[in-house]
Amino acid sequence: MAVGPATLPILHPVSGVRLGIASAGIKKPGRKDVVVIEIAKKATLAGVFTKNAFCAAPVIVSKAHLQQGKNRYLLINTGNANAGTGEKGMKNAYACCKALAEVATTANAESTELKVKKEDILPFSTGVIGEPLPVEKIVAVLPDALESLDENRWAEAAEGIMTTDTRPKGACVQFVYEGKTITVTGISKGAGMIMPNMATMLGFVATDAAVSADLLQALLTEAADLTFNRITIDGDTSTNDSCMLIATGKSGAEVTKENDTLYRLFKDALHQVMLELSLAIVKDGEGATKLVTIRVEQAASQQEALATAYTVAHSPLVKTALFASDPNWGRILAAVGRAGIENLQLDNLQIYLDEVCIVEKGGRADSYTEEAGKKVMSQENILIKIVLNRGTINETVWTTDLSTEYVTINADYRS
Amino acid sequence: MAVGPATLPILHPVSGVRLGIASAGIKKPGRKDVVVIEIAKKATLAGVFTKNAFCAAPVIVSKAHLQQGKNRYLLINTGNANAGTGEKGMKNAYACCKALAEVATTANAESTELKVKKEDILPFSTGVIGEPLPVEKIVAVLPDALESLDENRWAEAAEGIMTTDTRPKGACVQFVYEGKTITVTGISKGAGMIMPNMATMLGFVATDAAVSADLLQALLTEAADLTFNRITIDGDTSTNDSCMLIATGKSGAEVTKENDTLYRLFKDALHQVMLELSLAIVKDGEGATKLVTIRVEQAASQQEALATAYTVAHSPLVKTALFASDPNWGRILAAVGRAGIENLQLDNLQIYLDEVCIVEKGGRADSYTEEAGKKVMSQENILIKIVLNRGTINETVWTTDLSTEYVTINADYRS
Repeated sequence: MAVGPATLPILHPVSGVRLGIASAGIKKPGRKDVVVIEIAKKATLAGVFTKNAFCAAPVIVSKAHLQQGKNRYLLINTGNANAGTGEKGMKNAYACCKALAEVATTANAESTELKVKKEDILPFSTGVIGEPLPVEKIVAVLPDALESLDENRWAEAAEGIMTTDTRPKGACVQFVYEGKTITVTGISKGAGMIMPNMATMLGFVATDAAVSADLLQALLTEAADLTFNRITIDGDTSTNDSCMLIATGKSGAEVTKENDTLYRLFKDALHQVMLELSLAIVKDGEGATKLVTIRVEQAASQQEALATAYTVAHSPLVKTALFASDPNWGRILAAVGRAGIENLQLDNLQIYLDEVCIVEKGGRADSYTEEAGKKVMSQENILIKIVLNRGTINETVWTTDLSTEYVTINADYRS
Repeated sequence: MAVGPATLPILHPVSGVRLGIASAGIKKPGRKDVVVIEIAKKATLAGVFTKNAFCAAPVIVSKAHLQQGKNRYLLINTGNANAGTGEKGMKNAYACCKALAEVATTANAESTELKVKKEDILPFSTGVIGEPLPVEKIVAVLPDALESLDENRWAEAAEGIMTTDTRPKGACVQFVYEGKTITVTGISKGAGMIMPNMATMLGFVATDAAVSADLLQALLTEAADLTFNRITIDGDTSTNDSCMLIATGKSGAEVTKENDTLYRLFKDALHQVMLELSLAIVKDGEGATKLVTIRVEQAASQQEALATAYTVAHSPLVKTALFASDPNWGRILAAVGRAGIENLQLDNLQIYLDEVCIVEKGGRADSYTEEAGKKVMSQENILIKIVLNRGTINETVWTTDLSTEYVTINADYRS
């Protein structure tokens, strides 16, 4: 199951970024399971990574190479997450980087300037954990991947990074500033925390704007906090989650904080692309039948707004009620009550399903009818709005319902 | 579904405590749905209540009456939780207390000393929330309940407080000290957070030891923290959870901190009874097929031990793997990784299923075999032991698996 249509929007190329795809047969023969993203020289790169204390080997390597190297290639494989693999996993991640560096250097042999080192490669892996990465299979197809490099392969790359995703995920926004067209294009993958085993949220976004490395990192961190870090399917966090942002500068437009107009336009475009990529993951959540927006308004702090939103988003009772299209306001109220907010006054709280007020003055709203609540809960997109009346902070998170299919998928995947 | 046998152990009477049961037809005609527990004069009473910010009306009233009154009767109804009912709910809770006080005073008319006030009554409600409490139905059967008061009705009372529980729950421990037999007997109810709608964990425990009110409260709080507060089915907390402890003193043995031997004996007996009552709730958890003990050892603090244990206990991916009898160590490891422990070193961690080491040195244990893991995971009782190697603190929580039946129960109950 998944929510909404499965169509991929048009993904415009980003000058300075080429994508190559190959089939290494890591898990299934014939499947596209290796993607290489080549980044033009002088581009900048930023990354955000899983907060799970147990990073997979490729995450550790990518974090280090992001600082140490020239950030020339992203190397992504599916079918194996190279996670929980100890020292051997680190060696395997380095081996893949080294192999790609050698192949890339050979391919560019005419130019000594283009010599690629292993530090210039950032590896990303997703798939089964605890199994040794099949390095030889990956290395064998790297020439194929490099040969296929092309600026127009974003849609294929979106397919190439899928694991249990039921559909490819991509987003693109273009805008014009002083006669220059600026493109932001991205792809993502993820479908919960997942068969096969903890598969991962990955996002790769690129723009042809010029952005300094520091500003790019700040913009990515801020956008990820409001998008990738605000979606939750089951509260589980992968060991491999990563989101990268490339800025090639090929459009000729430079984003700086001083240029307020361009800065805002770019920030909005980036936010929109990353939000679409994030929501695409939620809508493809395992067993998902609904996209649920949980908005907490008038909180005293961001901490209490997010605590409230996530407590509701993770409540199995709220999630099963959503699956059942049951406007069970008592479950939402009880979840808010256990969110750990000090001195929360029940009487001051309102809860809405879309525009329908379900709770006020400490109980079911007088104006509420079961019919009106049921109507909202039957929709594919549902807004649960919780107004705390304690301050001025608003926060939004997105989640799905909890269906029998979720349990079936996660209980059966290894059999 | 439920785990283990459904037999109720022998529940010895506690001198000074009488139990009465009646059928008020609150939700289903003919069902025993009102229980009155009469407490002898000079007994002491202690209580622990839900930490949910939204207490139901009976919880607010019971908390107040515990301090204000003489604690003569506990009045319990099922079928309606009187929660989310606002000001009207408070009035209804008081009305029930007042009615029982009048009936009890009339029944004891010969003795002016026994005049009962509404403050002497503590009300407890469990069942549907958001519906007005049917006060008249309850009041109408209070004479029946008082007439049936008897010290030997613990087992019937255990049935009388059931809602969606599939079995009554009780526990009893007796021990002898200096020729005096001391009894600790209790009953509990709860089966998750629950059809119909957030049903509640309730526990009523009594002893014929003499214990001062302050010490009794301290002992109950400590025992509840290690038992009722260490079980979790789905992480949801009811608005009505309560556990009460009565000490009548009729055995003639007085528990004080100064009498070290008796103090320890009593504390152990109380802990055992409350643990059995708590585990009975877990084993009757909605859709439960397994009783899972999660033990975190060698933590640096209680906070990190509990954070680790609860993160694993609430992980839908771990819970579905338990349902599938799948020794999916990667999911347990990932849950530990996102528990928010600072500077957690993967290499120092061990994870065991019973005695089978599944994770060490940052990955799957060398000695591990899928067969050995599968064998443990197929059991009805499973221990997941996580050794953090960071300190000396150990903590244990208990939970269940997550089955398709859990979703079905919670998605279907109102249809």
